[in-house]
Amino acid sequence: MALGEFDLIARYFKRPVKRAALGVGDDCALLRPTPGQQLAVSTDLLVEGRHFLSTVAPERLGHKALAVNLSDLAASGASPLAFTLSLSMPRAEERFLAPFAQGLLALADAHGIELVGGDTTGGPVLCIGITVMGEVPPGHALLRSGARVGDEIWVSGHLGDARLALEVFRGSLSLTGDAFDHVRRAMECPTPRVELGLALRGIASSAIDISDGLLGDLGHVLRASGVGAELDLAAFPRSAILAAQSDDWQRTCLLTGGDDYELLFTAPAERHEEVLLSAASAFTPVHCVGRVVAPERGLVVTQRGTPVDLAGLSAFDHFKS
Amino acid sequence: MALGEFDLIARYFKRPVKRAALGVGDDCALLRPTPGQQLAVSTDLLVEGRHFLSTVAPERLGHKALAVNLSDLAASGASPLAFTLSLSMPRAEERFLAPFAQGLLALADAHGIELVGGDTTGGPVLCIGITVMGEVPPGHALLRSGARVGDEIWVSGHLGDARLALEVFRGSLSLTGDAFDHVRRAMECPTPRVELGLALRGIASSAIDISDGLLGDLGHVLRASGVGAELDLAAFPRSAILAAQSDDWQRTCLLTGGDDYELLFTAPAERHEEVLLSAASAFTPVHCVGRVVAPERGLVVTQRGTPVDLAGLSAFDHFKS
Repeated sequence: MALGEFDLIARYFKRPVKRAALGVGDDCALLRPTPGQQLAVSTDLLVEGRHFLSTVAPERLGHKALAVNLSDLAASGASPLAFTLSLSMPRAEERFLAPFAQGLLALADAHGIELVGGDTTGGPVLCIGITVMGEVPPGHALLRSGARVGDEIWVSGHLGDARLALEVFRGSLSLTGDAFDHVRRAMECPTPRVELGLALRGIASSAIDISDGLLGDLGHVLRASGVGAELDLAAFPRSAILAAQSDDWQRTCLLTGGDDYELLFTAPAERHEEVLLSAASAFTPVHCVGRVVAPERGLVVTQRGTPVDLAGLSAFDHFKS
Repeated sequence: MALGEFDLIARYFKRPVKRAALGVGDDCALLRPTPGQQLAVSTDLLVEGRHFLSTVAPERLGHKALAVNLSDLAASGASPLAFTLSLSMPRAEERFLAPFAQGLLALADAHGIELVGGDTTGGPVLCIGITVMGEVPPGHALLRSGARVGDEIWVSGHLGDARLALEVFRGSLSLTGDAFDHVRRAMECPTPRVELGLALRGIASSAIDISDGLLGDLGHVLRASGVGAELDLAAFPRSAILAAQSDDWQRTCLLTGGDDYELLFTAPAERHEEVLLSAASAFTPVHCVGRVVAPERGLVVTQRGTPVDLAGLSAFDHFKS
């Protein structure tokens, strides 16, 4: 069923706004930022075949498109405010748009934020662009540049399951039944760690979300902070499904997995207990996986005292793959 | 020359921020909104082959991608603050990115706004997503819903040249030399009417920018305001190049042209002189082309007293073309 552009916007995405002064349907949306707060802004573009497979259920895709953006707010310790959506697709079909909007807006509702503007257009493949806005008190945002020598390095949740699912789709690995459902859900339905990001304000010294693989994203923190890092691979949290794979696959998925959308953050070692309490208050498991060292040490990963060979592992790059 | 994603962001788009607290390169950008102002937000997605031709010079494309977003701020009477950029493209090539960034950032500089965040990724065709943010005092935004019976209807600049250029590219019309250069520039380098939008705050009763053709965009205003309109086609501003075309082409280009990015606005008839003075203060020509009538009158277009047949004319729809 083909719908006109304006019809489909109205049908699936236009809802009465509660927080905003004006929502979808004028040239601009109008928001009421809290006076004195800084505005945190992030944008992500998801392209079919690059960031998601055409086999993904539309409801999950709607969830994920917003989740990866909320994950950026989480990594900054910002409280979500509103978002815009751009959609480009070959055909405007109800059987896609209805569940896509449902997944997207359910996650928005869970975080109390509104879709305030958008653009839909034809195009050869499905592209989903979201820009999310949040608020943070001045000086309280979590940055990549705040890691200090001696800090502990933490990750939330567990890593690598999304990569496992991707390798199953690629045919490199075989998983069936519940195990496949679990890792597929990790890939298609990531949980943005918004509550954890808020709880870590004033405690974490730096943060980033793990979207391109831990090593690549940690690299951003190390460069921005001018420090090095030692990681203990044995301390990395992982699912039972990943733990059942070969050492090679575990290392690959944990260190370069991508699509995890967990938070990687640093905090002073003396605040170890505070980190655990804050994470518990956000109902989010966290694990200490290493520590920040002097920059000349670079990045060292060991497993039970033995250096792990990082050759052949590299961060995901959308133009280098 | 192929570049990695992070390299190309840094090389072409990362500049020191002046107004923002934090620019490109962290999970979120951090802006400092003016306390008490509303935040105006708009987003547009441009797809190669739909919104621009592959023959457009990259510098002009960079200009246009931001211009169409600034045009939405203009139509809301908002003052530009900052923008984000998402790019999807088959290859990251310096010969495209360098001039694209130059055109984009030159227009940003002209309006004193900064690129504060972005995302670049591979994809089958070039897609450019921009989200722009601006500020407007509460209650002062120009909306589509404020037109009242008796108001005059105005347009800025002149209409239809962008459509002429498109028809030349399509082979339906023939133009050469300076005439073609002129209409091609209208299509590829629209001027966002930001200053006019600001000058019309408190004077105009409604406004919209003309992106999908005058009739379609006026239709949004009429529906949102619950009114009708009478237009005098003879009063429409047009270039000498368009005026030299057939009556049929003039009507088509003026009424359904699209890609004009001029402002269509209404204002009380007794404020006619104020409109002219405000437009002059913004160095923007404006013309009164009709008036707002009761909703049951619908939309009537006449030319020197004779009704113009609107059958066969329709607004551009990205999924209906």
